[in-house]
Amino acid sequence: MQLRPRFDAAGLVTAVVTDHASGDLLMVAHMNAEALEQTLASGFAHYWSRSRSALWKKGETSGALQAVREVLVDCDQDAIWLKVQVEKPEDTCHTGRATCFYRRVGPHGHGLLPALDRA
Amino acid sequence: MQLRPRFDAAGLVTAVVTDHASGDLLMVAHMNAEALEQTLASGFAHYWSRSRSALWKKGETSGALQAVREVLVDCDQDAIWLKVQVEKPEDTCHTGRATCFYRRVGPHGHGLLPALDRA
Repeated sequence: MQLRPRFDAAGLVTAVVTDHASGDLLMVAHMNAEALEQTLASGFAHYWSRSRSALWKKGETSGALQAVREVLVDCDQDAIWLKVQVEKPEDTCHTGRATCFYRRVGPHGHGLLPALDRA
Repeated sequence: MQLRPRFDAAGLVTAVVTDHASGDLLMVAHMNAEALEQTLASGFAHYWSRSRSALWKKGETSGALQAVREVLVDCDQDAIWLKVQVEKPEDTCHTGRATCFYRRVGPHGHGLLPALDRA
């Protein structure tokens, strides 16, 4: 059976990135065909930056490189799950954290609470 | 600090859904403002179906309802992480599996290997 990613109108699939060891969700990003190819070919995560309209090797500047340990795809092939091992994990998020998901939404959706155990 | 989701041009944010207990990635879906509001108000996950252009309470038909245990948001607020407890988990994926991510991408990106431990 062939991998046939279903790219959206902008040519992208969603990439969900978790830590290979802890299982923690680190970030959500996007990949075009080239980013996916470079990721599979190099073993390091590459994404498409929508804001900069550029291919982006994660960690090239920050040092938080993501070595890909496992890749899965969902049922309709429009989302990719990367399990990675991060070098310099404290710089995964541009805010200087190990995960982009460091805030918890309050009980009624009003306000953001720092997720203290993940900050 | 206020929750201010950054909806895309189609009015959507990405929702990453994991199992509250196991941490497993279950599915990736999309939410518009109404789906997010309904989720926070009801405590059960609601999504926006892009194929059906309709609000969708997950599990309403299949029974695989998702009780929301925790909600986090990422740094730029265009992705939401839901930790859920699934009723009837074997029907989370429309293929009749507990997760939509049941296939592993092969070493060179050619072909899909069944992820046996997750099938």
